[in-house]
Amino acid sequence: MRKGYFITFEGGDGAGKSTQINRLMEHLENCGFDVILTREPGGTDIGEKIRNIILDPENKEMDAVTEAMLYAASRAQHVAQVIKPAIEEGKIVICDRFIDSSIAYQGFGRGLGDSVSIINSYAVGEYMPDKTVLLKLKPQLGNKRISTREKDRIELESESFHQAVFEGYETLEKMYPERIIGVDATGTIDEIHDVIRNHIDDLLGL
Amino acid sequence: MRKGYFITFEGGDGAGKSTQINRLMEHLENCGFDVILTREPGGTDIGEKIRNIILDPENKEMDAVTEAMLYAASRAQHVAQVIKPAIEEGKIVICDRFIDSSIAYQGFGRGLGDSVSIINSYAVGEYMPDKTVLLKLKPQLGNKRISTREKDRIELESESFHQAVFEGYETLEKMYPERIIGVDATGTIDEIHDVIRNHIDDLLGL
Repeated sequence: MRKGYFITFEGGDGAGKSTQINRLMEHLENCGFDVILTREPGGTDIGEKIRNIILDPENKEMDAVTEAMLYAASRAQHVAQVIKPAIEEGKIVICDRFIDSSIAYQGFGRGLGDSVSIINSYAVGEYMPDKTVLLKLKPQLGNKRISTREKDRIELESESFHQAVFEGYETLEKMYPERIIGVDATGTIDEIHDVIRNHIDDLLGL
Repeated sequence: MRKGYFITFEGGDGAGKSTQINRLMEHLENCGFDVILTREPGGTDIGEKIRNIILDPENKEMDAVTEAMLYAASRAQHVAQVIKPAIEEGKIVICDRFIDSSIAYQGFGRGLGDSVSIINSYAVGEYMPDKTVLLKLKPQLGNKRISTREKDRIELESESFHQAVFEGYETLEKMYPERIIGVDATGTIDEIHDVIRNHIDDLLGL
């Protein structure tokens, strides 16, 4: 049995992950838990250097397999250096994006299929999330919400790519109903937070 | 059938790969072949950025799986952008280090085992080398030869690490006797070149 808990947030850009992560973190800290917040790609010094290569719009010629491997490299470092130690110390780790992002974006979006799960199994080992919150928002709506900020290489991808990612997430939700909590992201911030909080309170026995 | 050929050079640092690569390249160009020379990690703009992360002595805390994934990421880009197109155009590609380096250094040296072959199979696809020249030199001797230059993060590893890599290469030589040409690297430059040239001339039907 693990001492701590591992919760990940997933969904397209603009679905409101950051807002909901902050609300959940506040709730869990109010309940007395020791919570750490981290993100992918990145989360470590080495991971941030890898993140810069992945997201730099200059790296247009990046091969899909290279992209999948770089995400997995960043993830392996993140698990070894941050996630595993924190869970072993009994903390709650909340991570903005994790393995499901790779499966949705590279497996479904780029069409790499099952190879993405296999590659990532070496990066993640036994540290799969206890629960994953999937904020579901059609890519057209998400894109409108982020229209004012400068986009990275992945955000700049085509509408059909983001549609394939969205459908990939829905497939994952059906494949792992025990782990993945799908939440309609068109609700109000409070409505969405209440749904998430109920599920996480169940996980923690609150 | 491939139109071109793919030849890789392997072995510990100081075994004389660069010298022998240049001699072989000169020979093949004299025979009228269109030869391209490339190296790993690196070989592409994106690969060179990944190479910098891998070899930077500052990245001391790098996890072994991260290291293996970064090499595979660089390799996937290299195959897609350089090796595959050149072979399809009928060229001879000579590459300084390739998949066997990953198996020897991360599989054997870091103890990651078979996972390294599996991860790399997605990076390499059908572009395995036609022939691999393995320059065999005990790590103590190789280390003496490179003692005057500034060492990267991998070269700075312990003697026992480099001994495990050396034994890994010998295991690979036994596993793939058709592909891997093991050559004693203590001979003279001309002696070693003659052995290599004979094998490669056979491959090319010269």
